[in-house]
Amino acid sequence: MRILSAFIPRPQILSLRRFQTNSISTIHASMDPTEQSLRQSLSEKSSSVESQGNAVRALKASRAAKPEIDAAIDLLNKLKLEKSAVEKQLQSTITSSGNGSLNREAFRQAVVNTLERRLFYIPSFKIYRGVAGLFDYGPPGCAVKSNVLSFWRQHFILEENMLEVDCPCVTPEVVLKASGHVDKFTDLMVKDEKTGTCYRADHLLKDYCTEKLEKDLTISAEKAAEYKDVLAVMEDYSPEELGAKIKEYGITAPDTKNPLSDPYPFNLMFQTSIGPSGLIPGYMRPETAQGIFVNFKDLYYYNGRKLPFAAAQIGQAFRNEISPRQGLLRVREFTLAEIEHFVDPENKSHPKFSDVSKLEFLMFPREEQMSGQSAKKLCLGEAVAKGTVNNETLGYFIGRVYLFLTRLGIDKERLRFRQHLANEMAHYAADCWDAEIESSYGWIECVGIADRSAYDLRAHSEKSGVALVAEEKYAEPKEVEKLVINPVKKELGLAFKGNQKNVVESLEAMNEKEAMEMKATLESKGEVEFYVCTLGKNVSIKKNMVSISKEKKKEHQRVFTPSVIEPSFGIGRIIYCLYEHCFSTRPSKAGDEQLNVFRFPPLVAPIKCTVFPLVQNQQFEEATKVISKELTSVGISHKIDITGTSIGKRYARTDELGVPFAITVDSDTSVTIRERDSKDQVRVSLKEAASVVSSVAEGKMTWQDVWASFPHHSSAAADEQE
Amino acid sequence: MRILSAFIPRPQILSLRRFQTNSISTIHASMDPTEQSLRQSLSEKSSSVESQGNAVRALKASRAAKPEIDAAIDLLNKLKLEKSAVEKQLQSTITSSGNGSLNREAFRQAVVNTLERRLFYIPSFKIYRGVAGLFDYGPPGCAVKSNVLSFWRQHFILEENMLEVDCPCVTPEVVLKASGHVDKFTDLMVKDEKTGTCYRADHLLKDYCTEKLEKDLTISAEKAAEYKDVLAVMEDYSPEELGAKIKEYGITAPDTKNPLSDPYPFNLMFQTSIGPSGLIPGYMRPETAQGIFVNFKDLYYYNGRKLPFAAAQIGQAFRNEISPRQGLLRVREFTLAEIEHFVDPENKSHPKFSDVSKLEFLMFPREEQMSGQSAKKLCLGEAVAKGTVNNETLGYFIGRVYLFLTRLGIDKERLRFRQHLANEMAHYAADCWDAEIESSYGWIECVGIADRSAYDLRAHSEKSGVALVAEEKYAEPKEVEKLVINPVKKELGLAFKGNQKNVVESLEAMNEKEAMEMKATLESKGEVEFYVCTLGKNVSIKKNMVSISKEKKKEHQRVFTPSVIEPSFGIGRIIYCLYEHCFSTRPSKAGDEQLNVFRFPPLVAPIKCTVFPLVQNQQFEEATKVISKELTSVGISHKIDITGTSIGKRYARTDELGVPFAITVDSDTSVTIRERDSKDQVRVSLKEAASVVSSVAEGKMTWQDVWASFPHHSSAAADEQE
Repeated sequence: MRILSAFIPRPQILSLRRFQTNSISTIHASMDPTEQSLRQSLSEKSSSVESQGNAVRALKASRAAKPEIDAAIDLLNKLKLEKSAVEKQLQSTITSSGNGSLNREAFRQAVVNTLERRLFYIPSFKIYRGVAGLFDYGPPGCAVKSNVLSFWRQHFILEENMLEVDCPCVTPEVVLKASGHVDKFTDLMVKDEKTGTCYRADHLLKDYCTEKLEKDLTISAEKAAEYKDVLAVMEDYSPEELGAKIKEYGITAPDTKNPLSDPYPFNLMFQTSIGPSGLIPGYMRPETAQGIFVNFKDLYYYNGRKLPFAAAQIGQAFRNEISPRQGLLRVREFTLAEIEHFVDPENKSHPKFSDVSKLEFLMFPREEQMSGQSAKKLCLGEAVAKGTVNNETLGYFIGRVYLFLTRLGIDKERLRFRQHLANEMAHYAADCWDAEIESSYGWIECVGIADRSAYDLRAHSEKSGVALVAEEKYAEPKEVEKLVINPVKKELGLAFKGNQKNVVESLEAMNEKEAMEMKATLESKGEVEFYVCTLGKNVSIKKNMVSISKEKKKEHQRVFTPSVIEPSFGIGRIIYCLYEHCFSTRPSKAGDEQLNVFRFPPLVAPIKCTVFPLVQNQQFEEATKVISKELTSVGISHKIDITGTSIGKRYARTDELGVPFAITVDSDTSVTIRERDSKDQVRVSLKEAASVVSSVAEGKMTWQDVWASFPHHSSAAADEQE
Repeated sequence: MRILSAFIPRPQILSLRRFQTNSISTIHASMDPTEQSLRQSLSEKSSSVESQGNAVRALKASRAAKPEIDAAIDLLNKLKLEKSAVEKQLQSTITSSGNGSLNREAFRQAVVNTLERRLFYIPSFKIYRGVAGLFDYGPPGCAVKSNVLSFWRQHFILEENMLEVDCPCVTPEVVLKASGHVDKFTDLMVKDEKTGTCYRADHLLKDYCTEKLEKDLTISAEKAAEYKDVLAVMEDYSPEELGAKIKEYGITAPDTKNPLSDPYPFNLMFQTSIGPSGLIPGYMRPETAQGIFVNFKDLYYYNGRKLPFAAAQIGQAFRNEISPRQGLLRVREFTLAEIEHFVDPENKSHPKFSDVSKLEFLMFPREEQMSGQSAKKLCLGEAVAKGTVNNETLGYFIGRVYLFLTRLGIDKERLRFRQHLANEMAHYAADCWDAEIESSYGWIECVGIADRSAYDLRAHSEKSGVALVAEEKYAEPKEVEKLVINPVKKELGLAFKGNQKNVVESLEAMNEKEAMEMKATLESKGEVEFYVCTLGKNVSIKKNMVSISKEKKKEHQRVFTPSVIEPSFGIGRIIYCLYEHCFSTRPSKAGDEQLNVFRFPPLVAPIKCTVFPLVQNQQFEEATKVISKELTSVGISHKIDITGTSIGKRYARTDELGVPFAITVDSDTSVTIRERDSKDQVRVSLKEAASVVSSVAEGKMTWQDVWASFPHHSSAAADEQE
């Protein structure tokens, strides 16, 4: 929607908002060739059938000879058959692309069912029938989230020595006025004119076009192309354009068929007021970054007044979505992890860039998107060297984000870095790349990495009156030439009387080029025509009215507003995509059912290990306790399963929670350790069990190492009941 | 305030709210004996001076003999001198107790200055002049908070296998209506009748009484006792009583002296609305516990339908304080960590109680408070055995909280567990103990540990219609007697016509005792008078109108609402008290200034280690890099200080951040490790440095072990500049 893209308070707002579905598909959304030719052919066949029908009727009316009429009828029937064949083909083309989405939906349903059944998440306030867009993390979901955040802290904050801050969610209006959110952080909404029910205007238009394209075979190829075009560009519609389309298509309220209001902007922030008087308006923050910007000065001092440095924040953010869809991806409250890396705009190199420059992964630069190509594997170092990625620091973060996501367990073949198109970026942004992860909803933007230049710090400097700047002290003072413009007020007053002030201001506002041209003209001609915009007219400036010169000055330092490079992570989205990437099914041993497995890497697995005695007796229980105590002392989260069900069922249960290792206690001297994905089992002494699991869970050892070092356990014994 | 204590939606709300200052001092608040006798004596002396003055005047008027008059004047002067001496004594008594608070304030100022200068915290939105009651954690504060929360997770969630959940802050009204917050979570407020400025009513009354007591010597001992009494009981005042006192004392608006409105309740929740229609009212949660209660059913199933189990949540909570005071202790947004331990009300034993039963620490039972004694060291096992603490599970958590707080670094001599008085507890609560920590603000409640019985689950069951219950399956069916009441509708219809339904309902609603009495009367007299409350009158019931019997039934299980035992932690308060307990000063080596030291245990220290090259050269820089890399790989947060200032200054800087260890690189083969509190230094080889620091920082080794194992370093060399 233009109202958003014209302003773009911060890219990730937009991007986390707008690119929920496959925004790329909408760029080269032109119909696929088969469908187009089929629609074309169907429409031709229909015309042929119609005109042949007319011909037959004409022959009959003119009482033509029977053989002639019969021949015409034969042709008509042939044409009808052809038309019907094309119809079937078109139907199947549409359905098959639809089938893809059906399969995706079935897959998603399987994932979501498992997630909900095992309490990875719970619709919030479920006993009160819930609230759209609000979800709880249940115990395993909470553990996954906590693991992801710990790793984030380790991978970014600790390894890069970032300054972490933790600011409140409740934010006074002035801060979000400065950032632009109060005025511009909106979606377009329409209301049912009778019941007052609210809808997102673009959703209704999208639903209408999609429905037409998928269900209505009679629309012409031109009309179909028009709907596809609307789907592709509607994010750029103004409220008026969107309203006009809704009117043109006769779209009404989905529930009541009542007429709809014109689209108008609805602010997505949760509003509240601070203090008892009701006089201090406030909002729940829509992102965590503003808390960092307003603290820039203190953080800069804390860092010994040195650039570059990065500050980071993990916390809740809030967006009062008009009508949340897409389950866990579009929610009204979510955890963001944001980094603001402050850097000298004249030097965006990064000392550690060489650590990531050799990485190769899927990138999707602007040019490839515009020319309808797809994402391709690029070497990060080359992408920066060629200028595809604007600068080293931006490139460094792209590389670090790639490492972060793939180490969590995101499939690197379903992860791409997509560059923002020119019309997606704010005018001040230098470059912007989104880490997009493919899921059953399409490509989902999960991390935005933007070079936002000096925009945010300048906005808060202006609003607060506090200079948010950095200095660079010169090793020795530099001599610089400075332009000096001195209007001679006495002469100007005589010449322009009441307009003197406007003329003086306009003269002082000249840039170097303008001033030096004026100086040259005055010296050569003694007089110059000068446009004073505040008067809206030219005035005549004479040589005695202004002196223009260049003076040399010594400067000891340079004062500037730092640029900020901002990687911003939607933690909930990353976790949801991780669930989809890690989910798989395999047949049970008996082959009678499909078992669900979350193949989480140990790093993110909610529980690292289950411990179960093979049968319930005191001897095994004691051994189980010993192992449990040792696991606790080395910090390995684990669960003891003493239910009497078969080992096979217990394995299935832990597989579904994504637990990577299971220790089966089947003697009081040694145990069996089983790895989830391979289902391989080794025999390890009771004493060593905890340390082996801890080593492999913490990545100090691989399962291959374990497999090579310990006797293998024939699965027959323990697994036979599986 | 009575309005709160009558309802008490959840103890910790109240307790975190009400006991910010020294609530105990208000219980045995009766004046200290010296002050009382001095006020008494001053008032007697004043009377004596007055009557002797009258006597002198009478003698003069009656022209008495000069010697007689002179003697009377001598006596008057003597009395005046005595009065003035008593006045001085009283002044100094009041001032000396005031001095204590002055010293405390000076100490607090020193702590707060250091905290703010080193960015442990920052007033939020400072460049916009901030918002009362909102604070950011800066980098070291953030690290401390993160360490405290990690330890909390380890100590409670992991060690006790609790089910962690993570629910949204935005909460629909229905949930907080059920919990009682919408109606009752209020403070009493008064408004300046002209300007509309709001004040907390009890604050104004408290300020008035305190000011009178501290500044006004002329008030009588009776009046002084009255003010002290008001201070002691005002938390129990109704709005009317509070309003009456404000009127009686003529209290006006502090800023304008305008008259004040009557006190009225102000709800402390931040209100908002969910969705675009504005029709779903919502609030920012005032605590995290409700999210657990509404999920009870799912969590119970997740736990295999077994009791006891505990669920836990860490998250932000919000309270829109009328006028926040007390800096970091009374804020509008804060982090809570709450545990809800669900247990069979008929069995509150705890299998691990013996782990904590030997602990001894300061406890302050109800009786000791009422009889004016102070807290005393008790053995936890005995306190439970004697019934001072209601049950083992409650006792177990008290013990675990004690261990948690003292391991963080809370001084065990300034930590006590105070039992709630009967009037502080809600009627349904079985017992309640607060962990109170002494700080410059007095004894601060930081953790509430309450046995809340079945209250919360029942409230949500009723409101939602979803049964939040547990079952106990009997090993074998139990035979129970059940009351069966069968009204004979035909006879009742004939007798009572239109009132039949009311009579039937009343009969069915009889409890066992009532029913058996009716049965007896009907059998002996054939008829009984029966009050039908919905009709508001007696009716006559005959023998043929109802059959009452007891039947034996087999029951296979017992269904009941679990009790909940709730430890609730105010994380920000604990951290603030920790700052005060860890803060100390020591003279610099030159003796010319006091240096600040935060003696944090390594567990909570924001940075575990600083590394600095003694002088800047390439050899030392390389060694520094090697150590830094190793520290990162073992997960020890550290900071490299390459500023050129003296080692002494660098030590002072790290001491002020509470960094426990410093590695000085002064050769390329070995380094000096210095411990913060003892200032002792040892020589360790470059290779071992990181592992030594990691062992001692993670508690695998004590500094004594290190001191015993490595050669000592004479401090003269490295410390000489300190």
